[in-house]
Amino acid sequence: MNNRCEEFDKPKEECGVFGIYHTDGSAAAPDVAWGLCALQHRGQEACGIAVCDPCGPKGNISWHKDTGLVSEVFHTDILEKLKGSAGVGHVRYSTTGASTAENAQPLVLSYLKGTLALAHNGNLINAQKLAQKLQEEGAVFQTTTDSEVIACYIARERTHTSCVEDAILQTARKLKGGYALVIMSPRKLIGVRDPLGLKPLCLGKRGNSYILASESCALTAVGADFIRDIQPGEIITISKDGVRSDRRLVQEKHAHCIFEYIYFARPDSILDGINIYDARIRAGKALAASYPVDADLVTGVPDSGITAAMGYAQASGLPFAFAFYKNSYVGRTFIKPTQKERESAVHLKLSILGNVVRDKRLVLIDDSIVRGTTIASLIGMLKNAGAREVHVRISSPPFLFPCYYGTDVPSNDQLIASSRTAAQICTDIGADSLGYLKLEDLKQMTRELPLCKACFDSQYPV
Amino acid sequence: MNNRCEEFDKPKEECGVFGIYHTDGSAAAPDVAWGLCALQHRGQEACGIAVCDPCGPKGNISWHKDTGLVSEVFHTDILEKLKGSAGVGHVRYSTTGASTAENAQPLVLSYLKGTLALAHNGNLINAQKLAQKLQEEGAVFQTTTDSEVIACYIARERTHTSCVEDAILQTARKLKGGYALVIMSPRKLIGVRDPLGLKPLCLGKRGNSYILASESCALTAVGADFIRDIQPGEIITISKDGVRSDRRLVQEKHAHCIFEYIYFARPDSILDGINIYDARIRAGKALAASYPVDADLVTGVPDSGITAAMGYAQASGLPFAFAFYKNSYVGRTFIKPTQKERESAVHLKLSILGNVVRDKRLVLIDDSIVRGTTIASLIGMLKNAGAREVHVRISSPPFLFPCYYGTDVPSNDQLIASSRTAAQICTDIGADSLGYLKLEDLKQMTRELPLCKACFDSQYPV
Amino acid sequence: MNNRCEEFDKPKEECGVFGIYHTDGSAAAPDVAWGLCALQHRGQEACGIAVCDPCGPKGNISWHKDTGLVSEVFHTDILEKLKGSAGVGHVRYSTTGASTAENAQPLVLSYLKGTLALAHNGNLINAQKLAQKLQEEGAVFQTTTDSEVIACYIARERTHTSCVEDAILQTARKLKGGYALVIMSPRKLIGVRDPLGLKPLCLGKRGNSYILASESCALTAVGADFIRDIQPGEIITISKDGVRSDRRLVQEKHAHCIFEYIYFARPDSILDGINIYDARIRAGKALAASYPVDADLVTGVPDSGITAAMGYAQASGLPFAFAFYKNSYVGRTFIKPTQKERESAVHLKLSILGNVVRDKRLVLIDDSIVRGTTIASLIGMLKNAGAREVHVRISSPPFLFPCYYGTDVPSNDQLIASSRTAAQICTDIGADSLGYLKLEDLKQMTRELPLCKACFDSQYPV
Amino acid sequence: MNNRCEEFDKPKEECGVFGIYHTDGSAAAPDVAWGLCALQHRGQEACGIAVCDPCGPKGNISWHKDTGLVSEVFHTDILEKLKGSAGVGHVRYSTTGASTAENAQPLVLSYLKGTLALAHNGNLINAQKLAQKLQEEGAVFQTTTDSEVIACYIARERTHTSCVEDAILQTARKLKGGYALVIMSPRKLIGVRDPLGLKPLCLGKRGNSYILASESCALTAVGADFIRDIQPGEIITISKDGVRSDRRLVQEKHAHCIFEYIYFARPDSILDGINIYDARIRAGKALAASYPVDADLVTGVPDSGITAAMGYAQASGLPFAFAFYKNSYVGRTFIKPTQKERESAVHLKLSILGNVVRDKRLVLIDDSIVRGTTIASLIGMLKNAGAREVHVRISSPPFLFPCYYGTDVPSNDQLIASSRTAAQICTDIGADSLGYLKLEDLKQMTRELPLCKACFDSQYPV
Repeated sequence: MNNRCEEFDKPKEECGVFGIYHTDGSAAAPDVAWGLCALQHRGQEACGIAVCDPCGPKGNISWHKDTGLVSEVFHTDILEKLKGSAGVGHVRYSTTGASTAENAQPLVLSYLKGTLALAHNGNLINAQKLAQKLQEEGAVFQTTTDSEVIACYIARERTHTSCVEDAILQTARKLKGGYALVIMSPRKLIGVRDPLGLKPLCLGKRGNSYILASESCALTAVGADFIRDIQPGEIITISKDGVRSDRRLVQEKHAHCIFEYIYFARPDSILDGINIYDARIRAGKALAASYPVDADLVTGVPDSGITAAMGYAQASGLPFAFAFYKNSYVGRTFIKPTQKERESAVHLKLSILGNVVRDKRLVLIDDSIVRGTTIASLIGMLKNAGAREVHVRISSPPFLFPCYYGTDVPSNDQLIASSRTAAQICTDIGADSLGYLKLEDLKQMTRELPLCKACFDSQYPV
Repeated sequence: MNNRCEEFDKPKEECGVFGIYHTDGSAAAPDVAWGLCALQHRGQEACGIAVCDPCGPKGNISWHKDTGLVSEVFHTDILEKLKGSAGVGHVRYSTTGASTAENAQPLVLSYLKGTLALAHNGNLINAQKLAQKLQEEGAVFQTTTDSEVIACYIARERTHTSCVEDAILQTARKLKGGYALVIMSPRKLIGVRDPLGLKPLCLGKRGNSYILASESCALTAVGADFIRDIQPGEIITISKDGVRSDRRLVQEKHAHCIFEYIYFARPDSILDGINIYDARIRAGKALAASYPVDADLVTGVPDSGITAAMGYAQASGLPFAFAFYKNSYVGRTFIKPTQKERESAVHLKLSILGNVVRDKRLVLIDDSIVRGTTIASLIGMLKNAGAREVHVRISSPPFLFPCYYGTDVPSNDQLIASSRTAAQICTDIGADSLGYLKLEDLKQMTRELPLCKACFDSQYPV
Repeated sequence: MNNRCEEFDKPKEECGVFGIYHTDGSAAAPDVAWGLCALQHRGQEACGIAVCDPCGPKGNISWHKDTGLVSEVFHTDILEKLKGSAGVGHVRYSTTGASTAENAQPLVLSYLKGTLALAHNGNLINAQKLAQKLQEEGAVFQTTTDSEVIACYIARERTHTSCVEDAILQTARKLKGGYALVIMSPRKLIGVRDPLGLKPLCLGKRGNSYILASESCALTAVGADFIRDIQPGEIITISKDGVRSDRRLVQEKHAHCIFEYIYFARPDSILDGINIYDARIRAGKALAASYPVDADLVTGVPDSGITAAMGYAQASGLPFAFAFYKNSYVGRTFIKPTQKERESAVHLKLSILGNVVRDKRLVLIDDSIVRGTTIASLIGMLKNAGAREVHVRISSPPFLFPCYYGTDVPSNDQLIASSRTAAQICTDIGADSLGYLKLEDLKQMTRELPLCKACFDSQYPV
Repeated sequence: MNNRCEEFDKPKEECGVFGIYHTDGSAAAPDVAWGLCALQHRGQEACGIAVCDPCGPKGNISWHKDTGLVSEVFHTDILEKLKGSAGVGHVRYSTTGASTAENAQPLVLSYLKGTLALAHNGNLINAQKLAQKLQEEGAVFQTTTDSEVIACYIARERTHTSCVEDAILQTARKLKGGYALVIMSPRKLIGVRDPLGLKPLCLGKRGNSYILASESCALTAVGADFIRDIQPGEIITISKDGVRSDRRLVQEKHAHCIFEYIYFARPDSILDGINIYDARIRAGKALAASYPVDADLVTGVPDSGITAAMGYAQASGLPFAFAFYKNSYVGRTFIKPTQKERESAVHLKLSILGNVVRDKRLVLIDDSIVRGTTIASLIGMLKNAGAREVHVRISSPPFLFPCYYGTDVPSNDQLIASSRTAAQICTDIGADSLGYLKLEDLKQMTRELPLCKACFDSQYPV
């Protein structure tokens, strides 16, 4: 499964965005809170909700945002104060060094045409350049987020466009990178997805209410039906007049981020037509085909390696078993970030089911190796508990190149695969064998979906 | 697996106790915190740690306790203030209506011979009577816990015994019920287990340090080796002179609480010689033998039904699969306790992996049914997602009678099994078939261990 | 005036007690909160309220206590949860080293006859001895307060008396020291004052409700009329049957604490027949008679020296003026307790009105000198601002001996007067002259009231 | 005196600004905190500090701001994190309805030339218009403060000026209203005062450090010497090169806000050459000359009426006395804003010194009457306590017209003087006579200083 808030040594998380537009006047805030709760795996550092009444006077917007989990930040009394039938929300993963309370989203601002609330998942390659240009024209920034750059650009464009969608279009033409935006203007809820489709965004419907969300699991959480993915490059507008699409930025070439399928997305989500659970099962099966091994059982690192482990088990015919018990009460604040303490935390968080592994030859599946420290620690624990062999299988190719589109990864020198061969890594981590998913197997895993897999092969789509 | 903090419709939790005695003067508090973290599944309402220096001046004790998880209550700066090489800790499950901050443990008090810190897991049948007797002699109580009654009794006995162990012995002679105590006196760490062995307590060792803990998983968490279970009726004393046992209360007849094996204990613990994970696997296998069914796959309710489900799968030859994704970010504060909201919370907390269950005939394992509402809700979700059949198997017998020894269960009229037949329940919850573990299979599950299973057969051991 | 929460270098505060008994069933908690607010000058460290329904089932008691000011601890929502028409409250001054949250009052406990809530102002000389005796009979203590000793003693006595008042009487016979108690039993509100009358306690009435309070100003705050002071040694019981007095401990000899008149009590209170404001005016007049000086104006150290300064001005014919502006926003948490910072804090808290003091010869009144550091600092500030002369007059005699009855004073070696003559002190602090109130003038100040003034003359009443 | 945080029925407060520039690299934050503490009377709702190192890399700025008092918001650990030798701070009075945490100052932003931190006291008449203009050019706003408009304007101007001072000058040319700004750019600390001098700002020096502050009392608090008032219209720049002035906006016509002298400023401050304490004494003397009365004593409403009362006493020869005891522990959170509760709060906050007023004919001085409710309540309390006559004297003229320059006053219909004659008001409030300071006496009070007294005579300076 896939609860990653306290994982160690992993590619860092994405953000999650959510928006809802009720036509019957009912309160948006509780739905946004539940939707964000379902997207919490995409970011646990901060969250926020902004609501307005799209039929009321322009500019009346309420919002609340803070650091913490959705369930910590949004108690009933706070939700009750957020009155309005349209809403937008955000869960955020922390980026190093930034003053997080200020950087929480949605970004709420007033501009020429009233208020604007903006929730953003992604990363711009040219944010600095755009910010510089805006500053040269007199703009000021109060946060260090790309989101504020986007918002300022939209506001500037809005001075000479006839509607906010056109301002968004002009802005999107300038943005380079991966992004999914949910924007609430005084009268509309607008979703935008980057032309390559690097970041996911989908549309749902419940009664006469429309929903935009990073993943389909958030639609389920609010009882909505999945309608479709937003097309890469599409600008979709929800208003009292229904749903309208602007496809002027839609292009042929797509490049969906492979890491959504390997790691980010929840297994019960469907992204661009691909069922995440199935994709991970297929990855496990491909590993079994590429790297068979004579072993007694297959296990996975909780939670991220479990699904692929079941795929490996199915394909290999070896039995699947849990080797680890995961203590879900070990919170973030309790774990200190120094290396030594991080290893202790692995021991506190994961413990061995001794009878399961004793005298056994194990296949151990995880979804990726970044620094290699956690997997080494787990192999040590398994061997101490009597495991005879530990054959590591990784359900993604070696992580070799930096990501510029929003996946916050360690710098090159912290990526073990960038300086060590698989054989060396195998020795380093104390495994009996090591196999990475083959690059060519990604195709089958994601059913020929056009992918951005630059972190594996350096073929950056832009 | 077994993370129960946010489970619904379950027999409520136990408490957890932990104590450590370092002979080298090193700090006890961090070890107690880690030990409690490993016992957090036994109680999430409140926790506390008390430490003292068993070689220093008598009566210098430091403590901290509060409502919340261990990782929330004990930050580094608090642990650093708790100076002392002996320590005792407690995690507590809430009992209704009581002012929880006051009732948090360890109970710390001064008495004739200095200070006493007491951590208690269990429930006394005759607590009221003992309290009444003490009050008639002038005692006052500041909490509503059995623990204070025990502590007052020990203090009273201590006025005419030559050592604290004798006072504890005299007290234990009067206590009726299940209990495991860890007591810190100015010079000693003392463990006590009720003569029937209803509540678990074990001894561990790391270097020259000794540890007492409710479950062996807490020994592992602090890097200690499991030495042995404390014998039912044994009073074990750890001091600078080593370990000493008083077995005057040890008796032939034992009655270990069956629910530790079914539900309370962590799967990676070993209690009174029984590996919990294995016991649950055996329960699943027994269910497969008793209630075979022609189905496509076996699944379990996360987290408590997963292990038994794997046992069922192994015995039946049917494949095991995850049908549910569990969102571990849905916290306690976010979920309101009314019935309607509780059902919504099930939907938010557990979602279906649609591709797994569609058009499938499922065996669904859970560890118990209390009110029946949660399982009904889950079956409904599975059928909505396209499951053709849902055959429910429960890895314990029907829960029919109240528990007087510390398991906080709903009153009789809330136990669905006390007024409805299995067939009726099957219809009520919308299952296609329903099978409970047979009473006689408990014997095999726990390898002939003498059990208290009064909640199933009303044969109360005292 | 007299707001002392952030004063420096002063004899420390007392506690304050308050109780109310409504016969019409209306809520006690808001009245207790307002009463405590009026007594806040007696203790700012912690406060608490306990309420019960004296006509309801025995033992139903609600309470809340915490560190902080009344206005910080008791918000509307908390007051609303404290249901009951009888209530007792306490404001506490911190004592060094003690874990304050645990020691907050009222102390609430259950005993033979239901619940008991006890609020206590004072100090017992023989607390240790009584505690020892109780522990030898098996008692345990969870706090380090005298109050718990008293409560335990009452509970023990209650086992063989026919009513709680008799148990209180038997207890009071054993207590040595100064105390004022307000006790709430399931059916009664009981006030007790030590036989010497060291600590104040008075009775008020509003409609059919009766009130007990440390000072009459708290009666005014809840709109009640002052009825009378509780007699030293009197045990007064308020119940549905009205007010009843037990005077078996009443004795001839009284010894009211002189410091209530000099410093503790609010100027708008009347204690044992003495109007506090008037008493301080008389002290100032006596100083003017004893130590006249050729000066330009009279001023006082805010807030505690202001009233006596006005008395000095009236008697001397010199004009009164404010020399200092007091910044009341400088809170306790902001000021760190080291000596250096304490002096800076004086500068931040008090600033000079330069035009008032420039080229002037001043009489500066304060109520006491403990270490001498604050007055030295203020004199320095005045001289820097251009004051030509500063003649210090202290409205109490030199503080020479420790107090055993509840006034928390520095140890002897910190009392400047215990090792230095007035002439030396005058030089030390940089004053041009120094005069202390004469011991014999205390008689006139408090109108022949029998006093305990042992801190000045070491004639301890017990 | 003048602590107004919990005053009732008063013209609302100003904000306070403070800035410091150390040339020796020492930490600015603690000085800013102490300076703000001395300015706390100007705003208790929120506060903030921003610091930077003017010799370090551009753009490194740290800040912290929150709702609450300076002593609540800035603990030692927070101050220690604010590293930098230049700093700017702000205390804020709340404005209705605005989301206060967002609106706290200093406003910190990045712009073309690095960072800018801006603290602002005042009110712009044309803020809306300027904001509209900026929005038409694409600007966005994240707060509802004038300060953000000013900052955006400066940033826009900075795109075509050669230094930040010129951008500030261009901006100031557009601002209409009263304002005092302290601005921290990467290398400079800049102070600006509106050309009319409506809002105060002064310069101080300690060693080689320069300080800007709203009032001179804040200079004293940090041990600095008062150098001079910033000239109305002056832009003063402090940098490593010392102090430099731009006087291009300096003009002949000045109009200092009269309410600073009557009410806002601390009595120990000197503003534009006028000692505040002396001015209030003169106001009291003028009242005595205009409205003599045969009475027994003179008293004032704490704290704001005390100084003028002493002036009245001096001029009339009547004795001054305190009639009220003020309970300074009654905080803001404890007092609810409904009218009924507000009156109760007056009773809790102020109590009568009965012996002082009984059978006396009183002159009661206050600084202003807004709604009339509080003074009516106080007169009632005095009469209940036995006062024979209460002659009210107000140390300002009747408050008749709205203020557009930063004084947050009730709307016209809440100003009792706007619809009732003095005789009617006298009857309404239950006074025996009533006299307001005469308009012509303001001249003498402030020693011919050019004033804005539009709230009394509607002669608005712009």
